[in-house]
Amino acid sequence: MSAKNLQELLDQKGNTVELLRDSQIGAYIYPVVPAEFTNFRREVKSWQNTAVLFDQSHHMFNTYVRGADALKLLTDTGINSTANFPVNSAKQFVPVSPEGGVIGDGILFRLAEEEFVFVGRAPVANWLMFHGSKGYDVELENDPRSPSRPYGKQVTRSVWRFQIQGPRAWDVIEKLNGGPVEQLKFFRMSTMNIAGHEVRTLRHGMAGAPGLEIWGPYETYDQTREAILEAGSEFGIEPCGSRAYSSNTLESGWIPSPLPAVYTSEGLREYREWLPADGYEATNALAGSYVSDSIEDYYQNPWELGYGGFVKFDHDFIGRDALEAVDKESQRRKVTLEWNAEDVAKLLASPVDKNGPGYQFFDLPNANYGSSSFDRVEDADGSLLGLSMFTGYSSNERVALSLATVDPSVPHGAEVRVIWGEPDGGSKKTTVEPHEQFSVRAIVSPAPYTAMARESYQPGWRTGS
Amino acid sequence: MSAKNLQELLDQKGNTVELLRDSQIGAYIYPVVPAEFTNFRREVKSWQNTAVLFDQSHHMFNTYVRGADALKLLTDTGINSTANFPVNSAKQFVPVSPEGGVIGDGILFRLAEEEFVFVGRAPVANWLMFHGSKGYDVELENDPRSPSRPYGKQVTRSVWRFQIQGPRAWDVIEKLNGGPVEQLKFFRMSTMNIAGHEVRTLRHGMAGAPGLEIWGPYETYDQTREAILEAGSEFGIEPCGSRAYSSNTLESGWIPSPLPAVYTSEGLREYREWLPADGYEATNALAGSYVSDSIEDYYQNPWELGYGGFVKFDHDFIGRDALEAVDKESQRRKVTLEWNAEDVAKLLASPVDKNGPGYQFFDLPNANYGSSSFDRVEDADGSLLGLSMFTGYSSNERVALSLATVDPSVPHGAEVRVIWGEPDGGSKKTTVEPHEQFSVRAIVSPAPYTAMARESYQPGWRTGS
Repeated sequence: MSAKNLQELLDQKGNTVELLRDSQIGAYIYPVVPAEFTNFRREVKSWQNTAVLFDQSHHMFNTYVRGADALKLLTDTGINSTANFPVNSAKQFVPVSPEGGVIGDGILFRLAEEEFVFVGRAPVANWLMFHGSKGYDVELENDPRSPSRPYGKQVTRSVWRFQIQGPRAWDVIEKLNGGPVEQLKFFRMSTMNIAGHEVRTLRHGMAGAPGLEIWGPYETYDQTREAILEAGSEFGIEPCGSRAYSSNTLESGWIPSPLPAVYTSEGLREYREWLPADGYEATNALAGSYVSDSIEDYYQNPWELGYGGFVKFDHDFIGRDALEAVDKESQRRKVTLEWNAEDVAKLLASPVDKNGPGYQFFDLPNANYGSSSFDRVEDADGSLLGLSMFTGYSSNERVALSLATVDPSVPHGAEVRVIWGEPDGGSKKTTVEPHEQFSVRAIVSPAPYTAMARESYQPGWRTGS
Repeated sequence: MSAKNLQELLDQKGNTVELLRDSQIGAYIYPVVPAEFTNFRREVKSWQNTAVLFDQSHHMFNTYVRGADALKLLTDTGINSTANFPVNSAKQFVPVSPEGGVIGDGILFRLAEEEFVFVGRAPVANWLMFHGSKGYDVELENDPRSPSRPYGKQVTRSVWRFQIQGPRAWDVIEKLNGGPVEQLKFFRMSTMNIAGHEVRTLRHGMAGAPGLEIWGPYETYDQTREAILEAGSEFGIEPCGSRAYSSNTLESGWIPSPLPAVYTSEGLREYREWLPADGYEATNALAGSYVSDSIEDYYQNPWELGYGGFVKFDHDFIGRDALEAVDKESQRRKVTLEWNAEDVAKLLASPVDKNGPGYQFFDLPNANYGSSSFDRVEDADGSLLGLSMFTGYSSNERVALSLATVDPSVPHGAEVRVIWGEPDGGSKKTTVEPHEQFSVRAIVSPAPYTAMARESYQPGWRTGS
């Protein structure tokens, strides 16, 4: 009998790790936006050298929370303090489970006194829709991400959402606006004019240069986009396609894809009975060389993802007790791994090696082959040091990078190993062909990424070689 | 002043080769169909091992020719004989210029006594629309290919068009039909039943196994596709995404992308004045290491593309005199080049080589970076032997292949060189980043491709090394 909700599905399958590792959903897709406008290398280079137009209209949920209890709902569910959360500001919002496992994260905008919108992946959208239905005086509106494969069907959203970023971004913005635009503090909101319309703005930034996120009614999508590209032309703006897009996070250090920590808590049984049997939590493809019997081993707490600074015990929230009990000093911390060029060359050349099954395909620039990636990070002796959670290639750095969380004992500059590919020939995911694993050397580096200076490089760290 | 037609554009620019080599249109895209349903390696392997569903609904023009003079128009414009062209049969239709240069090619279906449809790229569609307007008693209807970047807009066509191919294709077809389906001769048409509808069929085949091309009203797209995938499931059918799709021609030996020979003939001035300044002929991106001052050097005659057998002097047609004057024996002939794995490994690894500008990106499985590719094929001394015209990677063979036309003196088994990348750092095409050229060893092989046996391999051919 087919399951009616996530809980029934988990009960039927018995093994959550296996269920998600063998998910048939395919790659996590950045939908609707064309793969490439020019070529992905050029598009990637634009955000470091000129200006880029990111189209973020399609790959995220918009979850609107309106009403007298809107702030209360978000205070009760987020690790973040809301003591200082004025209208026209935003926060990186992180809810956790009662046991302190991250559900997900995203940007929470305070649009008006009693109106917020959360922009992020499905797990937090679902979490807010569920908890918001539990006696809060709120009106909830969920605008799901666009279909992964629209296949010629029309797509609409509640808003278009763009970012103008890069060293020349402010030139583009002021030209569009027809005059100076005040550079507010990071994550503060304002307005500007584009093509005769006032649009709302969020102060953002990238590669050390100020930029803006902007949004407006979906009906004005084409005219807004055309106005930006026309104004930006003299500054070398490039529209960024879906292929280049996801690699920006490798440089900026945001891990987009933690596994929502919702599968095991007895306190979340009602939630799992509310979640569908075919939603994100049920079909989320778990990929990578790290395989544990327990799905809980994939959960991350806020410190492990670099969100320790957001945890504020100035309010009650789901998971507070669990987080208060965490020993902060011993938690893994977020790093960037710079993959060894010689080893990556072997992965890239594997498709033309007729002998043997080869390695798991390393696609450029997005090498992830599931919704949530967990690759083993090891020392030279094969001991587990942490987990590599998002992998790809930076055309700016000409290097493969991954974002990882590693034991606090692992210093920047240490040489570690990432195990690329799944054990036992690979899982049944549709993105996986039979393959062998490959142990890739990598240098532990800061997140956001900066190349480690030669003197801080520590080859053979922990082995004395 | 902006040009009003192709002729004006050519007159303004002065250098047609430069115009097309620096085209800003980007890659030639296989639109609408999702990039991957599972992964492109698996999809490619399905047409050799199980069954595949090709979706050909979007990337070609459908040009309908109806009326008393329909056959006459096609006879007057094609090199093909129409003496034996019964209703419910099809031909690979090839028109040429007055000077004998190929305009393009595609499949011409005789749907009824006075009704034909041509399915192919823009140049032949344009050619038929133009000539059909010159006093023929015909009604013409042109259904252009779908937009390259629909970007969430709805797409419709006159028909959906699928192929069911591979060793288990006939099992899928007969299950769908609910009973035996007669295996007509190649390129003969009939009907079958799918999901309660009668649909028309064209006998096709691939990898030595019979298959069918089928088409029907676009409104029944989803239900037809779902019925095929459901019926085919037990036989291992895979829907083929746009990423895998184009690599099938590397194995089957069809060159999809000759340059239409329309730019220079004085007799085609009126045609060029009729063609728009922003159409395929004006924006077609010319890519590759072969650069000549004269656009005519890119023109191919039918023998050079493997269509010599279609040339029939049993009728008058545009270009007949020119073709009658051709010395058939001295023409280049179509071959497959099997690229050296060690050399291709260097191309594939180039993105992670921080030193130097690297090589032109070799994308998998479709490595072409323009609408029409022309790479130099050389002997070991750098003398030109021919042109490599479509390049990519076969996941079945685990090898990079290209389709080329080479001098008749070059035997199968000869080792030649393909120059990958453009001279002088590369053209201004949007698909090109600054790069160096790379001389790739390749073995001349038959088209359709079969690996050359070890004993026929001739390393150092023509150099005695």
